[in-house]
Amino acid sequence: MASDVISTDRVEEANVYSAAGDKLGSIDDLMIDKVSGQVCYTALEFGGFLGIGTDRYPIPWSMLKYDVAVDGYVVPLDKTQLEGAPRYSSDAVPDYDDIYRSSVDKYYGL
Amino acid sequence: MASDVISTDRVEEANVYSAAGDKLGSIDDLMIDKVSGQVCYTALEFGGFLGIGTDRYPIPWSMLKYDVAVDGYVVPLDKTQLEGAPRYSSDAVPDYDDIYRSSVDKYYGL
Repeated sequence: MASDVISTDRVEEANVYSAAGDKLGSIDDLMIDKVSGQVCYTALEFGGFLGIGTDRYPIPWSMLKYDVAVDGYVVPLDKTQLEGAPRYSSDAVPDYDDIYRSSVDKYYGL
Repeated sequence: MASDVISTDRVEEANVYSAAGDKLGSIDDLMIDKVSGQVCYTALEFGGFLGIGTDRYPIPWSMLKYDVAVDGYVVPLDKTQLEGAPRYSSDAVPDYDDIYRSSVDKYYGL
């Protein structure tokens, strides 16, 4: 493992940017395959005001690219695409079962 | 991804058992490769009394096997082996750099 190995708590503070450099939000949670230990999705905190009323947007991990220049992650998405994306309230986290994951993957063309 | 996909917060509550079925402790933190999203080590909370004075023991993720029967993880270790293992205080988490990781891997024969 050549990359930085850090606590998931620190990854969960990371900012997420569009390719154009706009800050979209931050990683609120990491969804992990509990057997393999591989992150599968992040729950992106996007929208809202001062943390109030922000929903969580599941993003397939494969879409995130770590960018050392911003010490954060870049996704090939913009705000308009996110506004139409699957999301849930922070107090109503769904079960990330096969059906749910397939629906998220389908939205993102994966 | 066929396995359960869950929040890292839930993985961090999981118990860790020896092969003989003794509860060794619980997962306190997950150390992740921030580029690949793969968990590399867990910080096992072991020892102490009622959560007071417990150190953290880095365990290579490859040593943990999820066991549905106990809804937790099993490691090929016992308490005696852990008592001699690398550890750190919960308020003095080291940088998991190449040198540190190599020292942990070496202790566990990896």
